[in-house]
Formats: sequence, structure tokens, C-alpha cells
Amino acid sequence: MKLVPLGDRVVIKALKAEETTKSGIVLPGQSKEKPQQAEVIAVGPGGVVDGKEVTMQVKTGDKVIYSKYSGTEVELDGEEYIIVKQSDILAIME
Amino acid sequence: MKLVPLGDRVVIKALKAEETTKSGIVLPGQSKEKPQQAEVIAVGPGGVVDGKEVTMQVKTGDKVIYSKYSGTEVELDGEEYIIVKQSDILAIME
Amino acid sequence: MKLVPLGDRVVIKALKAEETTKSGIVLPGQSKEKPQQAEVIAVGPGGVVDGKEVTMQVKTGDKVIYSKYSGTEVELDGEEYIIVKQSDILAIME
Amino acid sequence: MKLVPLGDRVVIKALKAEETTKSGIVLPGQSKEKPQQAEVIAVGPGGVVDGKEVTMQVKTGDKVIYSKYSGTEVELDGEEYIIVKQSDILAIME
Amino acid sequence: MKLVPLGDRVVIKALKAEETTKSGIVLPGQSKEKPQQAEVIAVGPGGVVDGKEVTMQVKTGDKVIYSKYSGTEVELDGEEYIIVKQSDILAIME
Amino acid sequence: MKLVPLGDRVVIKALKAEETTKSGIVLPGQSKEKPQQAEVIAVGPGGVVDGKEVTMQVKTGDKVIYSKYSGTEVELDGEEYIIVKQSDILAIME
Amino acid sequence: MKLVPLGDRVVIKALKAEETTKSGIVLPGQSKEKPQQAEVIAVGPGGVVDGKEVTMQVKTGDKVIYSKYSGTEVELDGEEYIIVKQSDILAIME
Repeated sequence: MKLVPLGDRVVIKALKAEETTKSGIVLPGQSKEKPQQAEVIAVGPGGVVDGKEVTMQVKTGDKVIYSKYSGTEVELDGEEYIIVKQSDILAIME
Repeated sequence: MKLVPLGDRVVIKALKAEETTKSGIVLPGQSKEKPQQAEVIAVGPGGVVDGKEVTMQVKTGDKVIYSKYSGTEVELDGEEYIIVKQSDILAIME
Repeated sequence: MKLVPLGDRVVIKALKAEETTKSGIVLPGQSKEKPQQAEVIAVGPGGVVDGKEVTMQVKTGDKVIYSKYSGTEVELDGEEYIIVKQSDILAIME
Repeated sequence: MKLVPLGDRVVIKALKAEETTKSGIVLPGQSKEKPQQAEVIAVGPGGVVDGKEVTMQVKTGDKVIYSKYSGTEVELDGEEYIIVKQSDILAIME
Repeated sequence: MKLVPLGDRVVIKALKAEETTKSGIVLPGQSKEKPQQAEVIAVGPGGVVDGKEVTMQVKTGDKVIYSKYSGTEVELDGEEYIIVKQSDILAIME
Repeated sequence: MKLVPLGDRVVIKALKAEETTKSGIVLPGQSKEKPQQAEVIAVGPGGVVDGKEVTMQVKTGDKVIYSKYSGTEVELDGEEYIIVKQSDILAIME
Repeated sequence: MKLVPLGDRVVIKALKAEETTKSGIVLPGQSKEKPQQAEVIAVGPGGVVDGKEVTMQVKTGDKVIYSKYSGTEVELDGEEYIIVKQSDILAIME
């Protein structure tokens, strides 16, 4: 069984191996959204989302930085995934 | 008697058999919307909703992940349904 | 004397005979808007509302599910009506 | 001296003769905006308001239901008027 | 030295001679914005403001009703002015 | 070293010589944004900002009234500047 | 490994050498976003972002002023970066 995201949604799987932020001092504004690394598992078709044309820019297998507290955790067949909107993905790591 | 949703609304019925989230630690940001599995019962016609063209992407019988605290519970003929907007459906399970 | 709603507004009359929700457990998110059954009494002309073209999809006599805490109660000639926007009508019961 | 409303504004005068709501039980959601009957005194030209084309649908002399707590009270030559946006007028009474 | 307002702004000067509201009972919703009479001193050029075409409908010398708590008080050469957006002007008094 | 503002931003320098507001009574609504006089130091190119075409209407050397609590203070080479959006500039003093 | 920002995002690296604000008195409105100097490391492709065409105006190597509490801190290979939207960049220092 697999997850097929709708619209501009992306299914990602968090990478847990290394801590992403090691900075000792956490500033108020920045601590609100803690970035995290993840791998893209499935990508929605894009198209018109909320009345706006969205082109998907990430693809399955991409390693990405996403806003940690965005998205929705989903467990399927014992695996944990996160479903985010593409706009919650900040950058691709190459 | 059956429910015919308007616009981009979808009538779904929650699947109760298995717990969807088993993760021990619930993170603040993610606990806000608890995902849940449901079956699509009826799908609105889409069209122009709030001034934006919406194409329906789910169909009757689809198993979907939706944002649990979205939508409106409705009871009809002793059965409980939830009416959500299609944008509250995150992914289809295949 | 009758009510002629403007724009995308609909005059409805609540159906009181049967309780619409019998569920013992009320979930926080869903209790915010308590659905209710009503009959459509009069339908506005639609057209451009708040800069967006609205086509009316309900008609006089329709039995509908609407968001209970939306709309405005109006009493006219001893009868109580509710004036809602069409977007507050979730589904038609057929 | 008379009031010439701008844009989509309408000058109305509240009808005080009869109480509009006699319902004993006031529901939380509905009590937020208490409807009231008024007569239309002057109607703005409509046109582009906040970037959206507005066509005026009420005319001088119309008896209307409006959202009571919307609008601005104005006193001119000892008479009290209320200036509302047309979108605060819910229905015309015929 | 004179004030040349930008965009859809209007420089007005409050008329203080007569009290505009004499109503004994102040209703909660209406007390939020206390209307007031003013004279138009200078009118901005209009044009595209916040991405929307605005046509100026008031002119220097107009007596207007404006929302009292909108706008910004400015003192120039010992005179007090208020700079409001045209949309804060409710009606012209003729 | 000089500041080149982006989009619809304007670099201004506050004029401190004379107090701009001398009114004894400060009304609640108006005290929210305290106007202030400044000189325009540098003007952004305008163009499409947040999806909207913006034409710059102020130029270097203009004396302007701006909303005091808008904008961001920047210190460069011992001089203090404020970077505001053009829409925070209310009027030009001529 | 390098960061490739999506859409209108920009990867920057804060310049720490000199304090940007030395003003003794911090005004409430301005203290909300503390400006800071940074160097642009990588620039997203721009294009349609949230339904609006965005043209990137900064380039790698630019020294910029950005809103300090905007953006997201990211650590990669022991280096700390900040990912901001281009609209959080106020000015280029030349």
C-alpha cells in the first residue's frame, strides 16, 4: 500500500541520522520552525491548487530541507511519513 | 436518503479498524492536525468554488488520508459521515 | 411579506423534528460547527459576489445540511428564518 | 443637507416599530450579528470598490434586513442614519 | 508648506463646531468607529494602489463623513490634519 | 558604502529638528501610528512586488510623512536609516 | 554538499564582524525585526511562487540587509546558513 499525494503535496520521510541544528543559542524567531532533512517518497501532480498553478520542483529520491513543524505525520504499514505542501520544502541538498 | 455535497466538498466515512498513528512522541506542530483514514462516499461537482476553478481528484470508494479535525460530522439514517473540502484530503492510499 | 436574499445568500428554515447528531463523543475540531438540517425557502440571484462569479446550486424546497453557527436568524411575521451564504450549505439531502 | 455615500455604501434608517427577534433562546453563533430592519435612504454609485466591480442591488425606499452591528451611526440634522456596505444587507423585504 | 498625499490617501481637517453623535445609547458594534465630519484639504492621485486601480471620488473642499479612528494625525505649521485612505471616507455631505 | 533598496522599499532618514505632533490629547486609534517627517535617501526600483506592479512615486531628497512604527532601522557607517515600503509613506511635504 | 533553494528562497550567511544596530533606545515597532547583514550564498530560480511571478533581484556574493527574525536556520557540513524568502531581503549594500 502506498500514499499518492493530492495537488501540491509531497510525501517525505525524515532522515534521522545526524542532528541538523547544533547551534547553542536558539533565537526566538528562528526556533519557531526547526528545519529538518528528509527524503522525498512521493510527489503530487501539482496543477491548479487553491486557484493557482503549481509546478512540482522536487522528485522522488531528492534529499530536502523542510520546515519541521509543518505537515502532517502519517503512519502506513509501520513506516512513518510526513505529508507537506511543496511550499514547506525550503531547499534541495545536492 | 443520501448526501449530495456541494462545490468542492466530499462526504467521507472514517475507517476505524486500525489506529493510524502509533508514534509515542507527539510533536506540538504535528499534533494540531491528526491524520485519519476514511473512505470516500460522495464527491461534489467541483467547478468554481470561492472564485477558483476546482477539479475533483478523488472518487467514490477511494481510501484517503484526511486532516482529522477538519470537516463537519453529519449523522444521517444512523450512519456517521464527515463532510470535508477536497483540500482537506492529503493523499489517496493505493 | 417575503424575504428576497441578495447575492449568494439563501433563506432557510431549520428542520426541528429529529436531532441531527447523536454521537456521544464530540471531538473538539468538529464541535466548532454543528451541522443541521434545513429547508431552502428563498435563493439569491448569485452573480458577482465579492468580485467572484457565484452560481446558485440550491433551489427552493431543497433539504440541506448547513453549518449551524453560520448565518443570521431573522424573524418575519412570526416565523423564524436563517439567512446563510450558499457556501455555508454543505450538502443537499436527496 | 443630505448624505451621498461613496462606492458600495448605503445610507439606511433603522425601523424601530417592531422588535425583529422575539426568540427566547439566543444561540451563541447567531447572537453575534443581530439582524434588523431598515429603510434605504441613499445608495452609493457602486463601481470598482477595493479592486472589485460592485453593482448596487438595492434602491432608495427598499425595506431591508441588515446585520445590526455592522456599519457606522451618523447623525445629521437631528436624524440618525447608518452607513453600511451593500454586502451587510442580507435581504430585501417585499 | 503643504501636504501632497500619495496614492489613494486624502488629507482632511476635522470640523469641530458641532457634535456629530448625540445618541444617548451607544451600541457595542457601532461605537467601534465613531464617525466625524471633516473637510477635504488635499487628494492623492489615485491610480494603482496595492495592485488595484483606485479612482478618487472626493475633491478639495468636500465636506465628508469619515471613520474617526482611522487615519493618521499630522501637524504641519501649527495646523492639525488627518491623512486617511479614501476608503475610510463613508459619504459626502451635500 | 550605500544602501540599494529592493522592490518597493525606500531608505529614509528621520528629521529630528521639530516635534511633529504637539496635540495634548492623544486619541486611541490615532496613537497607534505616530507620523514622522523624514528625507528620502534611496528609492527601490519598484516593479512587480508581491505579484503587483508598483510604480515608485517618491524620489531622493523628498521630505515625507511616514508611519513612525513601520519599517526597519538600519545603521550603516555610523548613520541611522529606516527602510520602509513606499506604502508606509503617507504624503510628501512641498 | 550544497543547498539549492526552491522558488523565491535565498540561502544567506550572516556577517558577524560588526554590530549592525548601536542605537541606545529601541522603539517598540522597530525592535520587532532586527536588521542584519549577510552574504548571499545561493539564489532560488524564482518563477511562479504562490501564484505570483517572482524575479530574483539578488545574486550570489551580494552583501544584503535582511530581517533578522525571518527565515530558517540550517546547518550543513558544520556551516550555518539561513534560508529566507527574497522579500525578507530589504536592501543590497554597495
